Amino acid sequence: MEENKEHIIFEITEAILENVEQLVNTQNDKAALDFFNEIHYADIAEILDTLTLDQATYVIKLLDSEKTSDILSELDEDVSSKILNNLSAKEIAEELEELDTDDAVDLIEELPEERKETVIAEIEDEIFAAEIKELMTYEEDTAGGLMAKELVKVYESWTVAGCLRKIRAQAKHVKRVHSIYVVTKEEKLIGRLSLKDLLIAKNESKIADIYIPKVDYVHVNDDDEEVAKVMAKYDLEAIPVVDDKKCLLGRITIDDIVDVIKEEAEKDYQLAAGITQDVDAEDSIWMLTKARLPWLFLGLVGGIGAALIMGDFEDMLKEHSVLFFFTPLIAAMAGNVGVQSSAIIVQGLANDDVKGSVNTRLIKEMLLAAFNGVVLAIVLFLFVWVYKGEVATALAISLALIVVIIVAGLIGTFVPLFLNKRGIDPAIATGPFITTSNDIFGILIYFWIAKLILGI
Amino acid sequence: MEENKEHIIFEITEAILENVEQLVNTQNDKAALDFFNEIHYADIAEILDTLTLDQATYVIKLLDSEKTSDILSELDEDVSSKILNNLSAKEIAEELEELDTDDAVDLIEELPEERKETVIAEIEDEIFAAEIKELMTYEEDTAGGLMAKELVKVYESWTVAGCLRKIRAQAKHVKRVHSIYVVTKEEKLIGRLSLKDLLIAKNESKIADIYIPKVDYVHVNDDDEEVAKVMAKYDLEAIPVVDDKKCLLGRITIDDIVDVIKEEAEKDYQLAAGITQDVDAEDSIWMLTKARLPWLFLGLVGGIGAALIMGDFEDMLKEHSVLFFFTPLIAAMAGNVGVQSSAIIVQGLANDDVKGSVNTRLIKEMLLAAFNGVVLAIVLFLFVWVYKGEVATALAISLALIVVIIVAGLIGTFVPLFLNKRGIDPAIATGPFITTSNDIFGILIYFWIAKLILGI
Repeated sequence: MEENKEHIIFEITEAILENVEQLVNTQNDKAALDFFNEIHYADIAEILDTLTLDQATYVIKLLDSEKTSDILSELDEDVSSKILNNLSAKEIAEELEELDTDDAVDLIEELPEERKETVIAEIEDEIFAAEIKELMTYEEDTAGGLMAKELVKVYESWTVAGCLRKIRAQAKHVKRVHSIYVVTKEEKLIGRLSLKDLLIAKNESKIADIYIPKVDYVHVNDDDEEVAKVMAKYDLEAIPVVDDKKCLLGRITIDDIVDVIKEEAEKDYQLAAGITQDVDAEDSIWMLTKARLPWLFLGLVGGIGAALIMGDFEDMLKEHSVLFFFTPLIAAMAGNVGVQSSAIIVQGLANDDVKGSVNTRLIKEMLLAAFNGVVLAIVLFLFVWVYKGEVATALAISLALIVVIIVAGLIGTFVPLFLNKRGIDPAIATGPFITTSNDIFGILIYFWIAKLILGI
Repeated sequence: MEENKEHIIFEITEAILENVEQLVNTQNDKAALDFFNEIHYADIAEILDTLTLDQATYVIKLLDSEKTSDILSELDEDVSSKILNNLSAKEIAEELEELDTDDAVDLIEELPEERKETVIAEIEDEIFAAEIKELMTYEEDTAGGLMAKELVKVYESWTVAGCLRKIRAQAKHVKRVHSIYVVTKEEKLIGRLSLKDLLIAKNESKIADIYIPKVDYVHVNDDDEEVAKVMAKYDLEAIPVVDDKKCLLGRITIDDIVDVIKEEAEKDYQLAAGITQDVDAEDSIWMLTKARLPWLFLGLVGGIGAALIMGDFEDMLKEHSVLFFFTPLIAAMAGNVGVQSSAIIVQGLANDDVKGSVNTRLIKEMLLAAFNGVVLAIVLFLFVWVYKGEVATALAISLALIVVIIVAGLIGTFVPLFLNKRGIDPAIATGPFITTSNDIFGILIYFWIAKLILGI
């Protein structure tokens, strides 16, 4: 056997990209084939993302559909949908037939509505086409939208020897055999077997005698995030999906769940940063503007609100102008505390990790904010005292800071809990939303307290 | 076969918790056993998290070590380490022997340094003890720290029939057989086989003739995030780990990777929200203060900086007091834009998704920020004009806003790219760090431009 030189971490260097461009531009089929056949489809997808549409289409048409179907599944959606536009319905159908049903459906969904039917009509394998049509009826963010029809199932009445024979046939269509699902003759899920159990069992045993009746499953309409939580919690690598009658419809594998977890984390992260929609660094300026501008506009409105409040306290300008110098500090602290406390709650809710009542939460946050506020207020007091030499002003500003921090912490804790109770995604409460409202409340409280203490 | 009533989503209700408390407090062994034996270990762990230490210890001592070992692995670390304190070295060793080596090591690492040796000495299975000792030598956040010693391997010289016999023996110690690794007699990894391939192959074939020489692997010292990226990218459910000589040391499974991905996402999210360390809503006020106060202190310093800048422009107060009303708005917009642009870059870097040079990035962000800035500035101009009736002031404030937004976007883009080049985690550039520096720059630029335009 020859030495295996492959290393898993394939690095796409400038030199490789130049080489690819040359191969593609000169349409050197033979050399290009040799080159791409040595590379994993996920890496080819990454290379194609950097090419022009014509170049990428050339590569897709050149390679075998066994490989290109996987590449198309890996590509950024905006790239793959353009390439699909350049392929005939027949060509697309051939790509689809190389994929598992779940990936095939994801690819079909990138086509314009009117082409979907045409492409499905070109699929030769009738069972496959029917499965695709079934999967297309489920909502994208449900268990049905995630599942594939490929699975290995056995009937409880079979023997181990019979099973092994049938499994050999079924397994050819299934990339990874995680569990073997045991069903009644009415297709009702009643248990599972691992390939390992089957290997260890005696040939003449009946499935009914050796199967494990404990089987985890999800309902076809369950939310995809719920499925992810369940699979992560119970350390499952695959889970069967059933309908209302508990009939086996499909299975979800952990690699799809990894994507769900990553997407969910990215969405929350973006919301916290004031970005809606699923954008990335490579999206167009227009897409990025649509994702960013609304949140900035919210910030603008908040800032105008703060300015109006300060206008109301204009009479304090003459005697206590220094108060106005600290408004950005007050706004920043209110914002920071609000984001911190809301982030802890949002993350806790996502992990089912928030215990105790809303009141317990609020009392804890109040103590925490008060403690932090006092520490920070002492520092601020000393600074203002030294800087301006006015004890009363220093006292007013620092006492106000403590109150602002406590209120900001309470708002940051309460709002996501409230949204969650109302069935609204609490993640929208983080970032600009909480910052803006805390800016306004913070500045209002600040001037009230200052006015009270300085007695104007 | 009886109807299977189990449903995957087990809900821990108040009623269940009350029932548990009663069972535990009355030490009703029989009823408690009946109750807990029906429940998944991950759910029992969740229940134990809500009990007192004595109650939880009672449950652990009551149940079979086959189940309790998994429960201990699932528990919050602060809970499980306290329970372990209540167990003898012998009892802990029994728990460990029920676990896979990777989970056993995680549990041992919770013990105080001086107990580790004692516990390992109590392990009866010498091979298992030696494997544990080996795994303890690897850094926690590397492939070695993630991997388990449990795997199924075959030598290239074996036949399929021989293999199946040996695998049946090995497989008893391995919960999930993902891949069968093929090694030379020097233990060097040369390929893989799936259980499926073995099932389909003829009994008399030689492994050397049927194995797949393409095998992905990682090095024992590779970073755990790198391993996660590789497994997610190539859709792997398990990956073998090798040493410098490519000798097979262990394997990493996808369920451990799911945890790495979740932890990484949580860390980035917390950093963006201004929280260091891995804290959650249930941690003590002291832990939460340690995670939050430093970032608030940074905000305080930034606010003081902004106040000092405004003090320098005090001479503008008399004629243009309205300028001072808009400082929170300017600071908020600078902060929001900075967080948005840095978040996009940080996320892009995490996904290896940032293409093109630093200059291309900066030019794109400049265009984007300029576009957003102009839209927002028009709104602000109209507001200030109507509110104050001064065209010059309105113009000064809105033009300053545009410049501030552009600079904030550039800082937000540049800083994470710069940190990343220097090998520093760019995620620290998000949140309070970028907000604070942008607050200061923003206010400085704002007053400069206002002074320029208003000609003071």
